[in-house]
Amino acid sequence: MQTNKINLLETYLSLYISPMQVLNATKKGDSDYVVLDIRNAPSQIKQDQIAGAIAMPAKDLPAHLDALDKAKTYVVYDWNGGTILGKQALLILLKAGFKAFELAGALEGWKGMKLPVEAV
Amino acid sequence: MQTNKINLLETYLSLYISPMQVLNATKKGDSDYVVLDIRNAPSQIKQDQIAGAIAMPAKDLPAHLDALDKAKTYVVYDWNGGTILGKQALLILLKAGFKAFELAGALEGWKGMKLPVEAV
Amino acid sequence: MQTNKINLLETYLSLYISPMQVLNATKKGDSDYVVLDIRNAPSQIKQDQIAGAIAMPAKDLPAHLDALDKAKTYVVYDWNGGTILGKQALLILLKAGFKAFELAGALEGWKGMKLPVEAV
Repeated sequence: MQTNKINLLETYLSLYISPMQVLNATKKGDSDYVVLDIRNAPSQIKQDQIAGAIAMPAKDLPAHLDALDKAKTYVVYDWNGGTILGKQALLILLKAGFKAFELAGALEGWKGMKLPVEAV
Repeated sequence: MQTNKINLLETYLSLYISPMQVLNATKKGDSDYVVLDIRNAPSQIKQDQIAGAIAMPAKDLPAHLDALDKAKTYVVYDWNGGTILGKQALLILLKAGFKAFELAGALEGWKGMKLPVEAV
Repeated sequence: MQTNKINLLETYLSLYISPMQVLNATKKGDSDYVVLDIRNAPSQIKQDQIAGAIAMPAKDLPAHLDALDKAKTYVVYDWNGGTILGKQALLILLKAGFKAFELAGALEGWKGMKLPVEAV
């Protein structure tokens, strides 16, 4: 059972990337990381997003895979860590062969750490 | 590792049902879906619940399995997506041979989407 | 798929311990349970913690494993159940051979149940 626990934790945690890793990567000019805001909500509900993120609602993601770049690493995020939308988007990306992670703590955690956001 | 990630995501996501699927299913008169509010809290703490839900606290669930119907699909929800009570209830139901899902986003997500609730 | 779901739920839930189990265990004088507050935040941000918890930020945990006791059972918690920090700390402890759980519902759930906290 101990092995099962460790295997589950290792695989689960391998789905995520930390806010600081994302921040450090996207600070550089030509980053290999692209942050996708996958919230299924209009701008007036979203109000703001992670600075530099691209709006790519999870519901639209399957139809837009051709526009993505296999050389990049995609980081998806939803409102908070209690939803499954990030995992749904991540599954779509991984199954299509993209490098991708979900942002640990989601937008709520990012804002809680006072990291940069921008109006949408 | 990619395969492990995809397998974990697929199994994890298969535990969940989205609010819109639940709403559409329960809108019909004789729905096959039954929503169970599994919060272990008295009414004065709960105050409201998903419209049409049945109060079935997780702690009482094992003793009430006989009252459930194998022809139905049960949807369980707790306060928010950061608890484990929904998964505990879901495990009880699945092990007893019922069709069941946890509501993605839980009550918090349902309310955030302004979906119908009712006083308890 | 039903078996996969049940296996995943059982392993996932085995990572957690409930607030009431922790409360009952730590109420006794010489408890075998030690609660670790693994939040990576200074005291002025944390403000309070679970009564009797030991501050052990997740980032410092790998360097402090020698100070832990294999006879004890460690319970880690972060701000809320939507983060991955608790799982990261748990993985470190389990891989090092310690008995450990994550607190179900995290600090947010503990406070929501009005369980005892103390200033830090």
